Amino acid sequence: MQILDGKTYRLELLEEYKKIIEEENLDIRLDIIKIGDDPSSIQYIKNKLKYTEMVGIKSVLHELDENTSEDEIIKLIKELNENDEVTGIILQSPIPQGRDAFNRCALEIAFSKDVDGFGKDNIYNLYMNKETILPCTVIGIIKLLEHYNINLDGASVTIVGRGNIVGKPLSIAMTNRNATVTMCHSHSEPLEKYTKDADIIVSACGCGRLIKKDMVKDGFVGVDVGVSFIDGKQVGDFDESAYDKASYITMPTGGVGPMTISMIINNLINLKKNSDN
Amino acid sequence: MQILDGKTYRLELLEEYKKIIEEENLDIRLDIIKIGDDPSSIQYIKNKLKYTEMVGIKSVLHELDENTSEDEIIKLIKELNENDEVTGIILQSPIPQGRDAFNRCALEIAFSKDVDGFGKDNIYNLYMNKETILPCTVIGIIKLLEHYNINLDGASVTIVGRGNIVGKPLSIAMTNRNATVTMCHSHSEPLEKYTKDADIIVSACGCGRLIKKDMVKDGFVGVDVGVSFIDGKQVGDFDESAYDKASYITMPTGGVGPMTISMIINNLINLKKNSDN
Repeated sequence: MQILDGKTYRLELLEEYKKIIEEENLDIRLDIIKIGDDPSSIQYIKNKLKYTEMVGIKSVLHELDENTSEDEIIKLIKELNENDEVTGIILQSPIPQGRDAFNRCALEIAFSKDVDGFGKDNIYNLYMNKETILPCTVIGIIKLLEHYNINLDGASVTIVGRGNIVGKPLSIAMTNRNATVTMCHSHSEPLEKYTKDADIIVSACGCGRLIKKDMVKDGFVGVDVGVSFIDGKQVGDFDESAYDKASYITMPTGGVGPMTISMIINNLINLKKNSDN
Repeated sequence: MQILDGKTYRLELLEEYKKIIEEENLDIRLDIIKIGDDPSSIQYIKNKLKYTEMVGIKSVLHELDENTSEDEIIKLIKELNENDEVTGIILQSPIPQGRDAFNRCALEIAFSKDVDGFGKDNIYNLYMNKETILPCTVIGIIKLLEHYNINLDGASVTIVGRGNIVGKPLSIAMTNRNATVTMCHSHSEPLEKYTKDADIIVSACGCGRLIKKDMVKDGFVGVDVGVSFIDGKQVGDFDESAYDKASYITMPTGGVGPMTISMIINNLINLKKNSDN
């Protein structure tokens, strides 16, 4: 069993991105909008600021009060859309107004600055197999598998969790790469029916230790996107009992997480290069 | 084995739609744009005009020369978007300029008049599980299965063919309905790996007689969207040998086809009702 080590690969990627930004003299600016003081939002932003700074990307943090109205958030987004100095815009979730308000506001981010890849144009292009900016976790997982020469073309891939952030866009992106994808979720019962013959299993449901030894085949590849806590310990969606049967697997930390954050930089570089053309 | 009879169900649906249109006094107009003289385009249009007329929907056919430029096609679409008398717009494919030109032009159809459901907003809403107008074949298949009380929630569904018209949008729509969907295509080998345990198999690849007896389980439900010709005879994607093992199956004709045409009317009624709100 070999660990898919996103943390070490991130170091390589950061070096590479830093070099590109320096050599090509890319003047990149990321604007992050923070609403309220949700602790996980604050942590996500802290990481984004840290790694973008590391490679020479400027960032501007817009801190709005938790009671800021949708109209005011949208007004700010529109100003940033028009501002030529801004390369990419992130509306950090979660926001106090909830998921629907978040979606309405985030949809106002211009296609040319949609670094998260959740906008209507990027999703439509993904669907049409004319991919532009992919969501960071999606492209992060694909790059991690590519890095270890794990083939997607013709592979059977089972994805657990149909969320809009990871599972659903990943299912389309992997179909675009000629994998045969089975999209599982809470109504997929018994789940092992869909996992036991899969070459690759990506789990993104946040159900701690869900996938156990008897649910996977020998030599499977496991990608663990789940984060949950059992007895105060952070665990992933794969039970440790499954590790022995894996050819490659990510650990609950140091796997997908470091890739996701790196892909913000990847996407920003692509946005910048596109805007210069 | 029971036949999923779209042709008979269509008669019921047409009666129902006719009644709704009369009783609610819906003044519906469908505008169809035809470019050039592709024989299959002409046949599709003929059917659309026949069935819409049957239920009391007005239609206007815009016949453009095969050399009409993209700009001119888009200009006409924009005029129809602005025309309050027009309920829905169809740009009939195939068009002589090819698939890309078709997509660029079709994307100009307003969300409020997108009867085919292929526009960016309808696809995005499908993706977000906030469905608005679904592509006609997709909603046609779902309604046909519902009509025979075939359950999607928790069912394992294998779809063969990842096209933008049927396979891909159907995979999302069925996931939205809590089916566990496996999306197969030309790189899914061996295909039987994915079909042999499926509760429902939808095949939309147009590979005549591809799915044979040894590739399906007893009691499976088969939905045949494929159209191809072997020795001059129209055949579907299911080989006749598989019929015996089916609990329900559509025939190569009289199954999905009649549903698709009926759903244009279904979608037009929905567009009309939405525009009146």
